Amino acid sequence: MKLPVSTEWLLHCATTLAQLDPGATASAAQLAEYYDLPAPYLAKQLQALVRAGVLSATTGPRGGFRLARPAAEITLLAIVEAVDGASSPYECREIRRQGVGALPDEDCRRTCVLAARMADAHEAWRGSLAGVSLADILAELPPTAPARTRSRIAATTRPAPHR
Amino acid sequence: MKLPVSTEWLLHCATTLAQLDPGATASAAQLAEYYDLPAPYLAKQLQALVRAGVLSATTGPRGGFRLARPAAEITLLAIVEAVDGASSPYECREIRRQGVGALPDEDCRRTCVLAARMADAHEAWRGSLAGVSLADILAELPPTAPARTRSRIAATTRPAPHR
Repeated sequence: MKLPVSTEWLLHCATTLAQLDPGATASAAQLAEYYDLPAPYLAKQLQALVRAGVLSATTGPRGGFRLARPAAEITLLAIVEAVDGASSPYECREIRRQGVGALPDEDCRRTCVLAARMADAHEAWRGSLAGVSLADILAELPPTAPARTRSRIAATTRPAPHR
Repeated sequence: MKLPVSTEWLLHCATTLAQLDPGATASAAQLAEYYDLPAPYLAKQLQALVRAGVLSATTGPRGGFRLARPAAEITLLAIVEAVDGASSPYECREIRRQGVGALPDEDCRRTCVLAARMADAHEAWRGSLAGVSLADILAELPPTAPARTRSRIAATTRPAPHR
């Protein structure tokens, strides 16, 4: 059971964008340089966050990505599920209905008890991540972090013609 | 983020073994026939449950698998982690330390806030599964289930010389 490596990238990129001045953006190339990540793959993943309504993308020479909503309204769950989808890691293939032990249909109208308890665990995981917003994350960073983040993002290379 | 398909197999096989008479066993071949599963791969997975202390294996003509502990002391977590290991699905590769935005060492003595919240979610998932035992699962089955399970296991093929 593994989340994609890009989960870490996007949690950090979203946290970085949450520290920019209101309305400011950072491009995929800038974020890739900021974290030394492969730019084309990061760009694709950032687009997944746009599709999920977590980020918005603007075009043009000063364009790039910014949060689509206030940081307090973006949960870690929204970011993680934008990367990996929302399905449970447990797959029930209904083996209770097959083989010598196959249960009759009337005993299978309710969800399998085991599948139900696995779904409960997935909901506990989701609930934990739904309870943490980017604003909560920022509140745990040192007070000097946002200014440093902004100055370091400014030190990354803007695409031409602004180089 | 996916658990192995065999997670379902082993949750069901352990639930089946929990319904047998005290001391009774079922072989990998019997359990494979019971659920129409590939016997050699199931046998390997059952051995993982033995190594994890969930099942015990006995050899000889009437040998096979049975619970190593009372059903009330075997949690779904023990079974799932025997199959898939106990590591978190979230992998922190410390990208906060790399690229233009690399944080100085003194800012990285504590676990990354994002990694800590992802670990919290994993613990919520683990806690949910640790709170459900095989005895809890049995208590949710219809009262007629154990007798049916025993008679159907008895209908599977015992290995020679008992065929």
